[in-house]
Amino acid sequence: MIEALVKSLPEGRVLTDPDVVDSYARDRTFLEPGKALGVVLATSRDDVVTTMRWATEHRVPVVPRGAGTGLAGAATASEGSIVLSLARMTAIRELSPADEIAVVEPGVITADLDRAAREHGLMYAPDPSSYEISTIGGNLATNAGGLRCVKYGVTRDSALGLEVVLADGRILNTGRRTVKGVTGYDLTGLFVGSEGTLGIITSATVRLRRAPIAPPATIAAEFGSLRDAAAAVSAIIAAGCQPSLMELLDRATLKAIDDWRNIGLEDSTNAMLIGQSDASDGQAMAALMRELCEANGASFVAVSSTPEETEDLIGIRRMAYEAKERLGACLVEDVCVPRSALPDMISAVEAAAARHEVMICTVAHAGDGNLHPVFIFEHGTPEPPARVWAAADEVFKAALELGGTLTGEHGVGLLKRRWLGLESGPVVTEVQQGIKRVFDPLGILNPGKAI
Amino acid sequence: MIEALVKSLPEGRVLTDPDVVDSYARDRTFLEPGKALGVVLATSRDDVVTTMRWATEHRVPVVPRGAGTGLAGAATASEGSIVLSLARMTAIRELSPADEIAVVEPGVITADLDRAAREHGLMYAPDPSSYEISTIGGNLATNAGGLRCVKYGVTRDSALGLEVVLADGRILNTGRRTVKGVTGYDLTGLFVGSEGTLGIITSATVRLRRAPIAPPATIAAEFGSLRDAAAAVSAIIAAGCQPSLMELLDRATLKAIDDWRNIGLEDSTNAMLIGQSDASDGQAMAALMRELCEANGASFVAVSSTPEETEDLIGIRRMAYEAKERLGACLVEDVCVPRSALPDMISAVEAAAARHEVMICTVAHAGDGNLHPVFIFEHGTPEPPARVWAAADEVFKAALELGGTLTGEHGVGLLKRRWLGLESGPVVTEVQQGIKRVFDPLGILNPGKAI
Repeated sequence: MIEALVKSLPEGRVLTDPDVVDSYARDRTFLEPGKALGVVLATSRDDVVTTMRWATEHRVPVVPRGAGTGLAGAATASEGSIVLSLARMTAIRELSPADEIAVVEPGVITADLDRAAREHGLMYAPDPSSYEISTIGGNLATNAGGLRCVKYGVTRDSALGLEVVLADGRILNTGRRTVKGVTGYDLTGLFVGSEGTLGIITSATVRLRRAPIAPPATIAAEFGSLRDAAAAVSAIIAAGCQPSLMELLDRATLKAIDDWRNIGLEDSTNAMLIGQSDASDGQAMAALMRELCEANGASFVAVSSTPEETEDLIGIRRMAYEAKERLGACLVEDVCVPRSALPDMISAVEAAAARHEVMICTVAHAGDGNLHPVFIFEHGTPEPPARVWAAADEVFKAALELGGTLTGEHGVGLLKRRWLGLESGPVVTEVQQGIKRVFDPLGILNPGKAI
Repeated sequence: MIEALVKSLPEGRVLTDPDVVDSYARDRTFLEPGKALGVVLATSRDDVVTTMRWATEHRVPVVPRGAGTGLAGAATASEGSIVLSLARMTAIRELSPADEIAVVEPGVITADLDRAAREHGLMYAPDPSSYEISTIGGNLATNAGGLRCVKYGVTRDSALGLEVVLADGRILNTGRRTVKGVTGYDLTGLFVGSEGTLGIITSATVRLRRAPIAPPATIAAEFGSLRDAAAAVSAIIAAGCQPSLMELLDRATLKAIDDWRNIGLEDSTNAMLIGQSDASDGQAMAALMRELCEANGASFVAVSSTPEETEDLIGIRRMAYEAKERLGACLVEDVCVPRSALPDMISAVEAAAARHEVMICTVAHAGDGNLHPVFIFEHGTPEPPARVWAAADEVFKAALELGGTLTGEHGVGLLKRRWLGLESGPVVTEVQQGIKRVFDPLGILNPGKAI
């Protein structure tokens, strides 16, 4: 069956060696993939069309992937599937400073687009932590967030139009090149975050923004309690500081970083808040943020005055994930709550950790109410032990009770489907399945994911 | 048939007097409605559920409406339909300053929500010109834009979650109360702009933003040519001024205003650009905008230093539509092009006006590339004469050729459906009809509109 596909694509596009295929079958979760038939390394829209026509003809499931940096199993290969890699479609086809847009292929590395834009005084705002290794296509498929989205919004907010290859190989063009437009339904928004279950994105028109003129001003504040730090976040937002970054790290995370890199963590420090302003009056905003941290009980506030100092402060946040990986295997979670519920959500995470004797380190995109509790378990364990799932279950339910959501930016993939019904309810599920059938009547597009 | 509906709703909810019904059958276009069976004045979600169950049972088309201020005929009643007015559902159910959200019923007047938010230092950003008389529900149904959307985005960018009554009376809850969230498909975005063809919005959770701290700084610049003014717009955007408003008025519009209110229009003035910054360093940004206007050939630039002067400058823009209505009946159009194409689009409008001997007055949300060419024809004419349609046809085609769209913020309704195929193409049309069938298999929700 796969022979027909190999023959219809240019030489070298299809990989079938089992070990190689297996290396394209996983994302960054612990999830064990099914055995895929092969991998297509698409280099053009035509390759994708050919693959989808073949898949439709033979009823073969297709699992699209970018760089495989996902944290929810959306790119985990399913049994008997073809993995369709878009990572080789790396052209920035157009970058228009006058219109502040770029037209890109899905395999472009996110930070590469940002760098290309900065040559023209622009930026590509969405910056998931993985942005040096993840692709625009993957970011679109998962509606990736990031550090800057507290000011600039998520990936969907930067997507203007898409070229999509549908399940049967037809081409669908959604959206437009203009910043506004209301002809018909918002198909662009529908595809962003659909995790490859509705079609394969082969090109995207994205919005660029003016890069800040001044270097950003950054503060790092230490607190005796997480609740005080959360109160400082509320005060900073309420004062209209419009931070371009607002990250919260708990003691467990700081301890992991300190044990690794010795950042001089004080015994009395139980939380650190890192805030940044990239506005033209950023220094004044940083001074105001410092004041508000002190008024809310910060024991110490560092303010950067040079780019190097800024890098040092942000560097602490960047070390968080690696520091945790030194402690054990990680289940990275992603709940999001209304900002006012941040202190209660933090308490709920702490309670779950204590009750189930699980180590949980939490970092949060605090300005968005988006927390990443990372559940640590023994290295080499094939999947999280029962007590980790029990703690995670509690954390998810607490987020929903607080008016929040199961996933702020990582997506549902395979990992969250177990809990999805708790958030979505039967009417949403039915409607989503109906939409899925419109685009994918045979059910071959990344089956079993997202909805 | 309608008797069953009258009986199943509380007394006084259904109007059937033909004259009264006719007064609920139109929007702000010239379009002649069909004869509707009656009007339901819903005051609660239950009224909407009852109406939709009845409509499903009897296969009666339902035309939802807010304040009827639409400019594309989306709320024009069709023959044999029931008009479902949401204008009496006016509760602001919740306004949370801490979470910067509000939960509102669809009949809330947009400016009322903005005022309620401002009592807490917040604002509701989307501000269509009609915002003192149009409703949130209508704004959501059309994905309304406005003056401030150059900085704050359109209605969809402020919509977090919706409660929707489906065609068969079931309740669908989309989205969430959090600023981020990626569970499942973006149903909220799908409903925003769907013009009542997918369901009836009975509640919306919307995002509020911090209201600017300083009073806005405003400039008004006069130019000898529209092209110079358009060049100034590009320079202002490229310099990172981030205007909160950037409006362009052509000579025909200025002349209409001057004839009515005597604004001292100079013979040499062929365009006026009004720019505003609401940033904390707004005065500096206004000074920079002034400089850039002068560098691009402005003959005169006024800068406001008091709220009264600001009101005077913005007042000129606000007079535009009324001034035009004094000249004749108006066909208000709404093309949007990439910002760099603004000068070419303006030339295309002027060429169409000359070729077809039609008076066209143009105002533009210039920062977004969104133009409103208003075609003037004789008062009392039941619909635009052929030469107006011929000129409009040319304008639409020019917008599409320049990489633009038929409608930036008014919607498709009935008015633009004739041209829709030119922009959307057959695959988009088929996919949209498929989505429509998922939500409305009997085709009773505002049939013949939007897609």
